[in-house]
Amino acid sequence: MIETGVESEQNQRVFRDRLVDAGHLIPSGVKGVYGYGSAFESVIRHLDAYVTKVGADQNAEVIRFPPILSRATYERTDHLETMPHLLGSIHSFVGEESEYRELVRMHEAHEDWSRSLARTDVMLAPAVCYPLYPTASGTLLPSGRVVDLMGFAFRHEPSDDPARIQMFRQREYVRLGTSAQAIAHRDEWLRRGETLLKSVGLDVTRVVANDPFFGRGGRVMKATQREQELKYELVVPITSRQKPTAVASSNYHVDHFGVTFDIRTADGDVAHSACVGFGYERIALALFNTHGIDSGLWPRDVKRVLELS
Amino acid sequence: MIETGVESEQNQRVFRDRLVDAGHLIPSGVKGVYGYGSAFESVIRHLDAYVTKVGADQNAEVIRFPPILSRATYERTDHLETMPHLLGSIHSFVGEESEYRELVRMHEAHEDWSRSLARTDVMLAPAVCYPLYPTASGTLLPSGRVVDLMGFAFRHEPSDDPARIQMFRQREYVRLGTSAQAIAHRDEWLRRGETLLKSVGLDVTRVVANDPFFGRGGRVMKATQREQELKYELVVPITSRQKPTAVASSNYHVDHFGVTFDIRTADGDVAHSACVGFGYERIALALFNTHGIDSGLWPRDVKRVLELS
Repeated sequence: MIETGVESEQNQRVFRDRLVDAGHLIPSGVKGVYGYGSAFESVIRHLDAYVTKVGADQNAEVIRFPPILSRATYERTDHLETMPHLLGSIHSFVGEESEYRELVRMHEAHEDWSRSLARTDVMLAPAVCYPLYPTASGTLLPSGRVVDLMGFAFRHEPSDDPARIQMFRQREYVRLGTSAQAIAHRDEWLRRGETLLKSVGLDVTRVVANDPFFGRGGRVMKATQREQELKYELVVPITSRQKPTAVASSNYHVDHFGVTFDIRTADGDVAHSACVGFGYERIALALFNTHGIDSGLWPRDVKRVLELS
Repeated sequence: MIETGVESEQNQRVFRDRLVDAGHLIPSGVKGVYGYGSAFESVIRHLDAYVTKVGADQNAEVIRFPPILSRATYERTDHLETMPHLLGSIHSFVGEESEYRELVRMHEAHEDWSRSLARTDVMLAPAVCYPLYPTASGTLLPSGRVVDLMGFAFRHEPSDDPARIQMFRQREYVRLGTSAQAIAHRDEWLRRGETLLKSVGLDVTRVVANDPFFGRGGRVMKATQREQELKYELVVPITSRQKPTAVASSNYHVDHFGVTFDIRTADGDVAHSACVGFGYERIALALFNTHGIDSGLWPRDVKRVLELS
């Protein structure tokens, strides 16, 4: 049976309402922005611990960034050219008393007071690994680096689909090193990610994918990225069987970040990089969709693997 | 001895450099925006677990929000009137192909492309409890509510002081209920916070405080807040003995959020609220400042309390 677009939207609404009724999602009035209840958060906490266990042998450097990055760093990436529709630019009020009075007047008159704000020195991070690369400029050791990151990523894509969240948690393992090291990381984590998701009972499929590049020029970039098989996603049905949702991805960036941020291997070559990313809210949603809205009633095996009591 | 402003700035720089050298802070190129190394993060993780232990008897509802809140919610608060200089408004690109070409041209010409962005439906949360109140509209049970929150708060106040961070983690326990329930919560957590911070060897002092209200009108609000003793801070010397840093605060909001978001007690009165907030990065910085830059060498008692191995 072919699902229609209307059916898919109905599925999204039905699942969203069930999540809200169960207290897993707390609506904020904005599409794709939710609070999370205690059972949902418990699943995320246990999932995080499980990923840590699966990645323990990597001896990764643990680094955490807040969900913002320097605007100057952002401007050095190609994100503005490739995915401007997803960006989050942070603006604030920097005026004195007279500008303040005008700001308050505009607010009271229901005018667009945001126009009178100024850009700050920071942007929201489009992925948790963006703040890392500029801090890695210079020459790597021969072993390269493996970095363990976790944080919030922002993408401006308001949606009724509960699996499309504007600011969501990502766990990443990033590899910096030679081309061989980066490709091995991408491939190894694609396998590990698949095993990890299957071990918690998810119906996961590996697919070649592309980033959501903007506009006409983006079409060519999408095709090239697919052709070169730089991005793989692990997809699981959540609100649609025909359009399963990416819950993890494993990516080889070639020398993209190495060139941009002057990261070099011990041999003096431009470093290559790769990253695997796990979308925690989406994996939790896939689990609630697959095993039922009450995590206390999930299959014993799944609870055992996640060490959920 | 009286510290001069220059000495205080020197202390800030010296401490910041030590933190960077030890790998605790990773500079981003923007003031007050850092990545955090693994030893620093380990302290924060253990601190979080310790706060959970200290608050276990509260049987609080665990809720987590992403660090954004609805712009409509933000507009219902008085934050724009009282602290506009600290706000974070999120803007994005919503144009089509022609606007896109202009955006890219501006970027390439080093013009201010941020001017061509549009406000989104979201703002950065100025405190982790802001997203909670609009979701609490309606009538409480007689017991009211105690809510356990953790997340990032944004305040636009770039500074060379390593203890003044633009986007930092806050753990909060929020009380919604009668005036008596809210005041008891504020007072109880002031005591608990003081005990908690002393138990990890910090030289903590309780002070009456005020929020950093903007401008001329703000001066009156600060005085009123102090006079009514609505806000207490727990301060610890970090980069200055004369101006110790607030690492936690316990606040009674009277019926401020109850009125704004129509939260009512079981008796139909407007609900009162209170919250305690722990600033995790600041507490960690106070610990590194007090006990030394190598957490492995901290006093045995401190390590025992935090269960640091």
